[in-house]
Amino acid sequence: MKARIRITLKNGVLDPQGKAIQNALGSLGFAGVEEVRQGKYIEVDLSETDEARARAEVERMCRELLANLVIENYSYELTA
Amino acid sequence: MKARIRITLKNGVLDPQGKAIQNALGSLGFAGVEEVRQGKYIEVDLSETDEARARAEVERMCRELLANLVIENYSYELTA
Repeated sequence: MKARIRITLKNGVLDPQGKAIQNALGSLGFAGVEEVRQGKYIEVDLSETDEARARAEVERMCRELLANLVIENYSYELTA
Repeated sequence: MKARIRITLKNGVLDPQGKAIQNALGSLGFAGVEEVRQGKYIEVDLSETDEARARAEVERMCRELLANLVIENYSYELTA
């Protein structure tokens, strides 16, 4: 199965990368950009074919390695 | 509208970050991880409420600033 994982900063955590992108968009003439937040996107190909087991594995990956739960949230989708 | 943009490396482009994650997952005892690719995830809040215009704007943002089209692909979803 393939997991598509998004890791985002929690609300209230400063995001200087997002702010930099927002400023750059403004300089390029994009009006009406209210907020930009940057996160990480990770695709993991798993040999596991059982969805429940794959979900448990991805959940554990996020908690143990991929996300810093103090400042980040994660979400993911699984596809065959 | 809110745009959720994913920027990923094109197939064939070396991804040392993804490889590092893959190795780290292996060291942590995760078996069956076949491939890991890391990309960027960007959320943009737009004041634009018309979907077609928002789509055109996000498309232009990706092409002009967010993605390096030589080595990266982008995809996005728009929600109200």
